[in-house]
Amino acid sequence: MSLLVLKFGGTSVGSPERIKNVAERVLRLRGEGHALIVVVSAMSGETDRLLGLAREIQPRSEGRELDVLLSTGEQVTIALLSMALESRGCPARSYTGGQVRILTDSMHNKARIRSIDDVRIRGDLDAGRVVVVAGFQGVDEEGAITTLGRGGSDTTAVALAAALKADECRIYTDVDGVYTTDPRVVQHARRLDRITFEEMLEMASLGSKVLQIRSVEFAGKYNVPLRVLSSFEEGPGTLITTEEGRVEQALVAGIAFTQNEAQLTIQGVPDQPGVAYGILGPIADANIEVDMIVQNIGGDGTTDFTFTVNRNDYEKAMEVLQKVAQGVGARKVSGDTKIAKISVVGVGMRSHAGIASRMFKALAKESINIRMISTSEIKISVVVDEKYMELGVRTLHDTFELEREPAGPSAS
Amino acid sequence: MSLLVLKFGGTSVGSPERIKNVAERVLRLRGEGHALIVVVSAMSGETDRLLGLAREIQPRSEGRELDVLLSTGEQVTIALLSMALESRGCPARSYTGGQVRILTDSMHNKARIRSIDDVRIRGDLDAGRVVVVAGFQGVDEEGAITTLGRGGSDTTAVALAAALKADECRIYTDVDGVYTTDPRVVQHARRLDRITFEEMLEMASLGSKVLQIRSVEFAGKYNVPLRVLSSFEEGPGTLITTEEGRVEQALVAGIAFTQNEAQLTIQGVPDQPGVAYGILGPIADANIEVDMIVQNIGGDGTTDFTFTVNRNDYEKAMEVLQKVAQGVGARKVSGDTKIAKISVVGVGMRSHAGIASRMFKALAKESINIRMISTSEIKISVVVDEKYMELGVRTLHDTFELEREPAGPSAS
Repeated sequence: MSLLVLKFGGTSVGSPERIKNVAERVLRLRGEGHALIVVVSAMSGETDRLLGLAREIQPRSEGRELDVLLSTGEQVTIALLSMALESRGCPARSYTGGQVRILTDSMHNKARIRSIDDVRIRGDLDAGRVVVVAGFQGVDEEGAITTLGRGGSDTTAVALAAALKADECRIYTDVDGVYTTDPRVVQHARRLDRITFEEMLEMASLGSKVLQIRSVEFAGKYNVPLRVLSSFEEGPGTLITTEEGRVEQALVAGIAFTQNEAQLTIQGVPDQPGVAYGILGPIADANIEVDMIVQNIGGDGTTDFTFTVNRNDYEKAMEVLQKVAQGVGARKVSGDTKIAKISVVGVGMRSHAGIASRMFKALAKESINIRMISTSEIKISVVVDEKYMELGVRTLHDTFELEREPAGPSAS
Repeated sequence: MSLLVLKFGGTSVGSPERIKNVAERVLRLRGEGHALIVVVSAMSGETDRLLGLAREIQPRSEGRELDVLLSTGEQVTIALLSMALESRGCPARSYTGGQVRILTDSMHNKARIRSIDDVRIRGDLDAGRVVVVAGFQGVDEEGAITTLGRGGSDTTAVALAAALKADECRIYTDVDGVYTTDPRVVQHARRLDRITFEEMLEMASLGSKVLQIRSVEFAGKYNVPLRVLSSFEEGPGTLITTEEGRVEQALVAGIAFTQNEAQLTIQGVPDQPGVAYGILGPIADANIEVDMIVQNIGGDGTTDFTFTVNRNDYEKAMEVLQKVAQGVGARKVSGDTKIAKISVVGVGMRSHAGIASRMFKALAKESINIRMISTSEIKISVVVDEKYMELGVRTLHDTFELEREPAGPSAS
């Protein structure tokens, strides 16, 4: 008998009908002999409804009381799912984060899990019960309710799996796994059987929003096998795991892309120590997160500096940058919101050279101009004109033959 | 400085706008120097919404998980009210029933409070915070969430007032106090300044639904001065207290009435020991609650037996009674749903004779036929034809001059 932690998100529990479907699925897995812990989110729309109420009270709600409010969303779901299970003859018991002492720090609205008391859960599992736990929430040392931030239910599931040494943590979503790229862009995109934690982190942060990044980090750290699969269809999904056992593997796992960024450039900055801080410090002070940063040496003792920010922050960033330019005596400030970032991700890059040149060659062949390049150990990102995004993604998907099942045991 | 417990029901917190109004009222009282604990119900409609969800999962929801579900209603309100207070610069802290350990038995859906841990609340009060507590809910020995049954928020407020030895427990409702009778029936019905716990119990159970009966019992037992007043208007409301200090008082406090009952009669029952049990036992076994019971000796060694039940139980009761009649060899079974019960209530009856005869005389003068009479130490109830109910109530209100302020210190 194996112990599984299952997590169902807001869409999967979005109505009483869907909660009944989740109950049926839990029953099937229980019938196969698994011990089960089920983590659920708030019903879709519920968190927004609660936030709406809070905003009517106080436009900028945050802190302790917001957590008291939002945590009710998951509490409703655990009760309904437990009822659905019990009405089907399956003994079940629901717990809020506080009741199983998912102990967190006191950073309300974005708390981090410190420990989980597994005694009560083990007792229920031993008694043959399905344990239903509210995702997204915990309790601090003082007993105050905390929440983990949006998407925190994934983290709850992984943390429970780690604390109880579960055999697998299964995240049920509205997609049936992780794909080589977005199937809406590349029709023959392929579902991956396996992907490493590191690849998944790069894919997720680059726009393939399947899992909460923090939960993947957590799973990687505690080595919890994580499986992404569909709430609505049967299928094996994608297993996110370590590199172990991968005898042979494709060089590239997938192609991620995003249109959410904008590019800003400051040209002709005197090239001297501290210039990067002089430019990016004020941006950070304005609470703007910077993604890619590229610096090029100019020809006349000056340097050019280009970086990307979230498109929503573009106006604000431009304002800051213009002030900075005056301060440092830069020649020119420019920017563009019509850009796209395309990234090729794969742990295979570590041991194989030549991925970058294949990438650049393929894009050149399609006359796609590269405006920025940034690389890490397992990914290469380029910024291109927004209008070339889909063509670029398709080209790279073909170039690295991602529609084909790779050889080796990972295809099992 | 006095310590007040305030309780606001579902209508009073029915929207963010109304919650802000409650916050303003709390601020005013705080400005007067009171230390405050505020107990709130779920926003009106919320409990029904949650019950609707539960019924979609399982038509007959009850037990542990229903409490997990319903308790979210009050949790939403405590968060919103605390936000509203804090955004007005008033330090506040919210607590669920479990967080301040309102310890109850494990009778889910109708739990009874055993104790309250006042340490945390005292700490907050000492620190100058307003303490906002979720009504209606508690936690059992095992840490499972329990609820006290509908209207249980009143009980929470009284229990907190008792545990913390508050100077007064104020129940804010949509009426501005307890009246001598329903102002919709008698236009010049008068708001009572004071009423005793016992009178209030009789008034409440007889149809003047202002307060949860259990909360009044509780307040009486622990001698917690209880005040009913309006959420929407200013005014002193009605103080519910002991008889102490009432030097002179009106004989009759008020007139209660109800149309919710039905009458059943079994005639010609052999008059022998055990007959009452033989008739009422099967009624109780069918889970039907009986209100008034009257037995008259017939002329021929038989007896007639009349009782009233809730109108919704009439059909079921009639069915049971017909079977009983065959068993005990009764002559006839009859019944009537078109009845009304009118009650005159007042602790003054204890020391003054003649109330009953004045009551019967007044009804006779209006040609209202009395079908049943039942008396207790502080009330006299009669059953009359439903169509005479309003006339009867008005007549009695006039007879006992309830529109007039009584003499003595209670009018202060």
